[in-house]
Amino acid sequence: MACIFCSIAAGEAESYQVYRGHGLMVILDKYPVSRGHLLVIPVEHYEAVQDTPPRLLAKAWVAASALAHVYRSRLGARGVKVLTNSGRIAGQVIFHFHIHVIPYWGDGQLGRGVLTREEALSVLEMLEPHKGVVEEYLKGAGLVG
Amino acid sequence: MACIFCSIAAGEAESYQVYRGHGLMVILDKYPVSRGHLLVIPVEHYEAVQDTPPRLLAKAWVAASALAHVYRSRLGARGVKVLTNSGRIAGQVIFHFHIHVIPYWGDGQLGRGVLTREEALSVLEMLEPHKGVVEEYLKGAGLVG
Repeated sequence: MACIFCSIAAGEAESYQVYRGHGLMVILDKYPVSRGHLLVIPVEHYEAVQDTPPRLLAKAWVAASALAHVYRSRLGARGVKVLTNSGRIAGQVIFHFHIHVIPYWGDGQLGRGVLTREEALSVLEMLEPHKGVVEEYLKGAGLVG
Repeated sequence: MACIFCSIAAGEAESYQVYRGHGLMVILDKYPVSRGHLLVIPVEHYEAVQDTPPRLLAKAWVAASALAHVYRSRLGARGVKVLTNSGRIAGQVIFHFHIHVIPYWGDGQLGRGVLTREEALSVLEMLEPHKGVVEEYLKGAGLVG
């Protein structure tokens, strides 16, 4: 069985990519809960939080936190959730470790339709000036040189 | 206005403590969503994920992930969620950064009553043999010496 995130990492499946580096990729969730719903995913395959190595966990969570900072402190989001689900019973759907970053804008739009190309491009444009924050946070945490 | 987590950190308010070290404390949530619901909290006060410094974020998330590993890989939990909420609209209730670790045991018990002393002591006893995993993960991530 092919893993969709491994296919995306290998460039064999499409995605809208926000960031790639240091063994991580950040893409737009295909079924966003809100505008700007992101996934932080290690390029290497691990099933979930419990089997991902500590150093890679640190990088992934710090990258996710950097994006939460961008939403809350730079882009005016009124809230944000940062989370991972492990196990079907806890809501995990794709069994390749990933962290959700879900901004709340206060417009009540927490739906779950398919991401449109128009929305995807507008989210990428919104994030473009702030992508450096991921690198800053990884450096700030002492996780990259 | 006093911050309850600052009061707990200072030893002025009670809590059931699982771990303390490296600027972090892990306590039992007073209103657990499931048996073993934990909070990973920096001792120093920050409002939420967006204003917590990167290095401290890395430590807190890695500690939370270590506890998720304990639940999933050692204690038989069928699932676990690891998450933080920022902003009232996203479900944040206490405005001192904290990460929830919520195990799923498959018994359908996702209530939210007040933690009893009996349940607290039984959770502490369950975790006692595995507390070293937090330190192992922090070391494994290169976050402590």
